[in-house]
Amino acid sequence: MKSTRRKFITTTAALAAGTVTASAISLKEQKEEWPIVHHVFFWLKNPGSVEDRDKLVAGVKTLAKIETVRKLRVGIVASTEKRDVVDNSWAVSELMFFSDLAGQATYQTHPIHLEFIKNCSHLWEKVIVYDAQDA
Amino acid sequence: MKSTRRKFITTTAALAAGTVTASAISLKEQKEEWPIVHHVFFWLKNPGSVEDRDKLVAGVKTLAKIETVRKLRVGIVASTEKRDVVDNSWAVSELMFFSDLAGQATYQTHPIHLEFIKNCSHLWEKVIVYDAQDA
Repeated sequence: MKSTRRKFITTTAALAAGTVTASAISLKEQKEEWPIVHHVFFWLKNPGSVEDRDKLVAGVKTLAKIETVRKLRVGIVASTEKRDVVDNSWAVSELMFFSDLAGQATYQTHPIHLEFIKNCSHLWEKVIVYDAQDA
Repeated sequence: MKSTRRKFITTTAALAAGTVTASAISLKEQKEEWPIVHHVFFWLKNPGSVEDRDKLVAGVKTLAKIETVRKLRVGIVASTEKRDVVDNSWAVSELMFFSDLAGQATYQTHPIHLEFIKNCSHLWEKVIVYDAQDA
């Protein structure tokens, strides 16, 4: 019984230590975990259509299921101040993080991505992609 | 002794549970913590200058000190496959997350931001800003 309890204490402490490490990594070191940033901006064929925008948002969200996509943020235009340098003519943004370039390449040809293009490409007129890596 | 040990077990288990929750929030719910995404792309006056690029990278990194900037990722062009939709003509990217629009507004007029513009604006020729909020 004593031995079991000691084992329990050790296991719990190890679990706690392990989890603290995982938490610290996700908050502070995310940069090194997912150094590849893939940001896509979509312009709609029907720019005023909230319905088409929402369809595209729903489509982009399916991409989170691709295993090499470490994090996905789907965005719409934020109502920040109007400035000459701010481009707010797009409708939907797709911000993804990958662990490496191979993960991004896998994503490009992944069946879920191809299915998304098949189902949603009729909604957009223009796409711009920015691929960055941590400096 | 028995009571102390029981207390230790309870405390450790609670800590472990608490940390698991914190970790889950940071990984899965970050979206709701920092829903405003501010992505800036800089084109250099001297596009081929690695020295100027590195100066700008260093300048952008100073912006992390602004308290409303929840997370900062400074990027350079990633060597992903060349495709028509991929714009790789820029040099430095600044990806920031804010808790709200007020945080972004505070950033715009913050002394550290103004100092950065004063010290580094001679380096860039063009800037494009995308402001998104979680869909």
